[in-house]
Amino acid sequence: INPELQLRVLEQVRQPKLVLCDTMNLWISQSRDKVLEVLSRVDVALMNDSEARQLFETPSLIRAGRRLLQAGPRVGIIKKGEHGALLFADNDFFAAPSYPLEDVLDPTGAGDSFAGGLIGFVAYTNDPSVDNLRKAVIYGSIVASFNVEDFSLNALRRVTPEDIARRYEEFVEMTQFET
Amino acid sequence: INPELQLRVLEQVRQPKLVLCDTMNLWISQSRDKVLEVLSRVDVALMNDSEARQLFETPSLIRAGRRLLQAGPRVGIIKKGEHGALLFADNDFFAAPSYPLEDVLDPTGAGDSFAGGLIGFVAYTNDPSVDNLRKAVIYGSIVASFNVEDFSLNALRRVTPEDIARRYEEFVEMTQFET
Repeated sequence: INPELQLRVLEQVRQPKLVLCDTMNLWISQSRDKVLEVLSRVDVALMNDSEARQLFETPSLIRAGRRLLQAGPRVGIIKKGEHGALLFADNDFFAAPSYPLEDVLDPTGAGDSFAGGLIGFVAYTNDPSVDNLRKAVIYGSIVASFNVEDFSLNALRRVTPEDIARRYEEFVEMTQFET
Repeated sequence: INPELQLRVLEQVRQPKLVLCDTMNLWISQSRDKVLEVLSRVDVALMNDSEARQLFETPSLIRAGRRLLQAGPRVGIIKKGEHGALLFADNDFFAAPSYPLEDVLDPTGAGDSFAGGLIGFVAYTNDPSVDNLRKAVIYGSIVASFNVEDFSLNALRRVTPEDIARRYEEFVEMTQFET
């Protein structure tokens, strides 16, 4: 929503444990200063790659991520669609791929379901540490991967905790290498 | 080089332990059948994302990777520039990010230095298993990350084994999550 409304919502929330925000190109174009004010007052800021490039005026997502942290949040997360997500924090950086899908039926809501899966996992585990946010990024990616496999909320209506656990195991397997 | 020349080179190599090929958009446009013939005769096939989409006529890199395997190689690797690389093998899939760089001075040679770092690591360790190829993808990505930080071969002339080992450690750190 409009960042001015986000700020008014935030003013009415009493002692929040963790505040996460998302934004979009419209507000970056129309209300850049207000978007930056919101970023200065949240714990975790989420946006996609094109929004990060637009807001911080750089083609480099790595530089955009650093500037996102300078804007105030403890953690910044840049979503890259099929290419996964990047997490930035003080002295921490995490890169996660997306769950590999041969077919994407409808990408509508991918970013929102990513955010929902992420914050849902943090709420469920009640652990906002950066290490747990790494896991939460994977869960966000998994929820988004189900969402884009069907129209509307159809896939999310069908998905079970077992389905999600199975994709998490696959994530582990597909990212491991000998260290 | 021209896939017809690749085939003539391959005919003259006696009992190769591991054959890796790369290709490019020009040959896919001009000599698609010969490119596919080369793919049917190598162990590891490397190409970038746009080449894979062009050759296998699909926007989906996951589907392109499966079709790449069907073309013959034991392992297919799709390079995605700043977004990392995907490795496909029978019953295996590996996704690796790129080393995060704020500044890329010159991307010329990134794909070639990736291939060189990858095959160099396989030769050095004398282990063409898929598990070792996962590590080799990381080393390829690291060598490419140094290459793009300067013009020509300047960065590769300066880089030391310790520099490479340090970025490998960073790769481990930036991809781990609790399993």
